[in-house]
Amino acid sequence: MKRVTILGATGSVGTSTLDLIERAPDAFKVVALTANRDVAGLAAAAKRTGAELAVVADEDCLPALREALAGSGVAAAGGDQAVADAARMEADVVMGAIVGCAGLAPVMAAVEQGRTVILANKEPLVSAGEVVLDAARAHGATLLPADSEHNAIFQCFDFDRPERIRRIILTASGGPFRDRDLDYMRSVTPDQAVAHPNWSMGAKISVDSATMMNKGLELIEAARLFPVPHDRIEIILHRQSVIHSLVDYVDGSVLAQLGPPDMRTPIAYCLGWPDRIDTPMEPLDLVSIGRLDFAPPDPARFPALILCRNALDAGGAKPAILNAANEVAVAAFLARRIGFLEIAAIVGDTLDRYDPPAPATLDAVLAVDAEARRIADERVKDCVA
Amino acid sequence: MKRVTILGATGSVGTSTLDLIERAPDAFKVVALTANRDVAGLAAAAKRTGAELAVVADEDCLPALREALAGSGVAAAGGDQAVADAARMEADVVMGAIVGCAGLAPVMAAVEQGRTVILANKEPLVSAGEVVLDAARAHGATLLPADSEHNAIFQCFDFDRPERIRRIILTASGGPFRDRDLDYMRSVTPDQAVAHPNWSMGAKISVDSATMMNKGLELIEAARLFPVPHDRIEIILHRQSVIHSLVDYVDGSVLAQLGPPDMRTPIAYCLGWPDRIDTPMEPLDLVSIGRLDFAPPDPARFPALILCRNALDAGGAKPAILNAANEVAVAAFLARRIGFLEIAAIVGDTLDRYDPPAPATLDAVLAVDAEARRIADERVKDCVA
Repeated sequence: MKRVTILGATGSVGTSTLDLIERAPDAFKVVALTANRDVAGLAAAAKRTGAELAVVADEDCLPALREALAGSGVAAAGGDQAVADAARMEADVVMGAIVGCAGLAPVMAAVEQGRTVILANKEPLVSAGEVVLDAARAHGATLLPADSEHNAIFQCFDFDRPERIRRIILTASGGPFRDRDLDYMRSVTPDQAVAHPNWSMGAKISVDSATMMNKGLELIEAARLFPVPHDRIEIILHRQSVIHSLVDYVDGSVLAQLGPPDMRTPIAYCLGWPDRIDTPMEPLDLVSIGRLDFAPPDPARFPALILCRNALDAGGAKPAILNAANEVAVAAFLARRIGFLEIAAIVGDTLDRYDPPAPATLDAVLAVDAEARRIADERVKDCVA
Repeated sequence: MKRVTILGATGSVGTSTLDLIERAPDAFKVVALTANRDVAGLAAAAKRTGAELAVVADEDCLPALREALAGSGVAAAGGDQAVADAARMEADVVMGAIVGCAGLAPVMAAVEQGRTVILANKEPLVSAGEVVLDAARAHGATLLPADSEHNAIFQCFDFDRPERIRRIILTASGGPFRDRDLDYMRSVTPDQAVAHPNWSMGAKISVDSATMMNKGLELIEAARLFPVPHDRIEIILHRQSVIHSLVDYVDGSVLAQLGPPDMRTPIAYCLGWPDRIDTPMEPLDLVSIGRLDFAPPDPARFPALILCRNALDAGGAKPAILNAANEVAVAAFLARRIGFLEIAAIVGDTLDRYDPPAPATLDAVLAVDAEARRIADERVKDCVA
């Protein structure tokens, strides 16, 4: 029996994780589940799975959670500190699926216990990459990436012989505007930007896919997770999103992981690791898919790719600034305050204007994040004015 | 330093192996090299690599070999027994690259010493599969497949958890007649049949690719090498030969090995295993390749696929009979004695006419092979008459 804690149990990744765990009741035991404010979803999941503890981050929701769990035998707790305490509980694997910077402290708490931590949000590797990796090394934590691209690389990467790896090749669908020119992109609406051709995702990440900022952030994450020089990580367009990424070895072998565009496969891989568990999806059918296409990415139309590579190479605070500014800019685009092409422009400007020293602690990362948001927000106001 | 013996050092696989070894003189030491009759090629390679021993299978060539090696410090020997003795010499890895049934006894000799043996000819797994595998288990030998498809599967197969594998997917280029109908195939010439679209290979294996007998034989080999039920091994058409094969896991992950169509990559993988060594080829460029296509195979046009699957399921002597009859039929086709479609017909007839008990020894396999050739040859004469 694997003891599992899920941080962010009511979101998309959290519910997929619960779905897989509940299909294998003999293999998994739920320790703790946390949510932000979804008391009903959290309480139902905790009761169904017989969790030891359910935690709601918003303390105002704690009375409702207590009431929902009354008589169930599931303990209830509330507040950010309680979420971090839940992350510290004895467990074989901790799923880190809390969206945004709120996920940083709980993931760090699990890392500092030396746990096996599944990373399903990008902040721990992008904004706080060096801090989290240092802590993982110091405390002997294992980091498993749930993102489909990094999970693919993880499955193909020989960690015993990283010097035998010539290249990592990240695949990118290219998003809804991969075949569009800059003129078209100038006037696209949020509805057009969130209509992803392959994956069903939230609005923020769908816009990141449309700008290809998502792929740039994945480039930064890949550089954190896999010990290869930055310039050995390439991005190629692969519109069908069937090959999730590839690893090229010195002998000419290129290993790849393929699969249907369904997050349950990489989540199941992480839950089962180093073994594998069943998922309910249909097997991949390459004959039905028929063909897989590849093309070079176009940084002229997708400048986010360049911003991310530069932020990675600069290191220090730059990735955290980039991530924070992008969140502000995407929110402004979704609120129809700025145009699509202004997203990358605002991120670039924020990176140019703000150059603090490298943050050495989680608090320092959060301070950089907050200041970058303030600067990006000013820039949004300039655009609107 | 890895000590390497090459059985069949002057053929295509043998010279590719030597090329790779000579590029890494600090990593490999040549123990013994063998050849059939190519004294000049064998002596030159033995002197270049500082081999301990050179063996020519045809004893009539031994005086010439002695003369060519005079003063070089390389010992010379001749005859089939000397080839098998060379295979038994202390070595870290033995490359089995002798074409045809002549390769069986030397490979078996290395297997019985518990060596790591690279299989580059199909007879040990197709004709003598059960005998060779029993010996490998009994003597603790490791078998590494050099064929690109099986090498791909080997790189993706989790031997610690074969029960987690849902399917093996063998890719097939489909050969030069993949887009042709039966009427066209009825009258094709040897020149048309040996013009393989992707790989540069000998005439026999090129014809096997045109009939897809080659893929059927690989199906049999795959069933020997990888512990999955026969019906879990599928074949798909993939005309570009870039994905060399795939392994589908229960969690939905499909692992694949890709690479340029160059035998040096799988050979290098086997030589380096479990580490990896450099090869001189250009890295795979998916953007230049542009697209990869997949389609179902058509057993109506390529009945060899059915013959092979039936022979695999029947087991016993059937795979040896199939392989022997196919060699006779392909030789007759190349000699313009029979038509292209008669190859599979003769193989099928031979399988129907001859049903000996399962051979339990190498000698019994060779007897089955000889009798199957005799029967197939009679059938060729019937066709011609």
